Amino acid sequence: MKVNEVSWSDLEQEVAQAAFQKAYEREINALIQDVRDNAVQISELEDIWRLHNFLSAKRHEIDGKYDYNYSVLVFVFATLIKQGWLHLDELKGLDQDKLTKIGSLSRM
Amino acid sequence: MKVNEVSWSDLEQEVAQAAFQKAYEREINALIQDVRDNAVQISELEDIWRLHNFLSAKRHEIDGKYDYNYSVLVFVFATLIKQGWLHLDELKGLDQDKLTKIGSLSRM
Repeated sequence: MKVNEVSWSDLEQEVAQAAFQKAYEREINALIQDVRDNAVQISELEDIWRLHNFLSAKRHEIDGKYDYNYSVLVFVFATLIKQGWLHLDELKGLDQDKLTKIGSLSRM
Repeated sequence: MKVNEVSWSDLEQEVAQAAFQKAYEREINALIQDVRDNAVQISELEDIWRLHNFLSAKRHEIDGKYDYNYSVLVFVFATLIKQGWLHLDELKGLDQDKLTKIGSLSRM
């Protein structure tokens, strides 16, 4: 069975939804803080366009990354762990095979 | 002679450059203040994307508007006056024909 064809039990779905939400909230809160900190330092037009470029990239990244779809969720979690928005132990409750795959992918 | 084919004397060019620069600085400073005021009120992701949309529109508008080109300058000044970034009397030194045209266009 390929990694993107595995099934998720009800318990796993609960764990996955909670972890996904937690990572999302962490990243969004960090982004909000970043933008606020960044904005108070704006003193010239170039700073504004730099903020605009940063937001364009972030929007694209966040829209793409937070795709709650069981066929790709193992990859999503691996990315979130790699980027520090989630800890592997917050996925406790998923089956061992998924955890092993997520752990390995997150170190790639 | 069409309005976009008129010539600009050395004195008029000086007046135009100074007025253009003044309007640009006013608008940029207002934008910087706007972004800073706006950013401190950001509390959720939607606010960030709203700021992003605002900056996208502003960038497009400013890039398009501040076109220092004598063939279109009468129209540029009319727009700047209409939007409140410049006063007609700050263009004193341009010939009367141009001032009349700019004044009329700014009220359209």
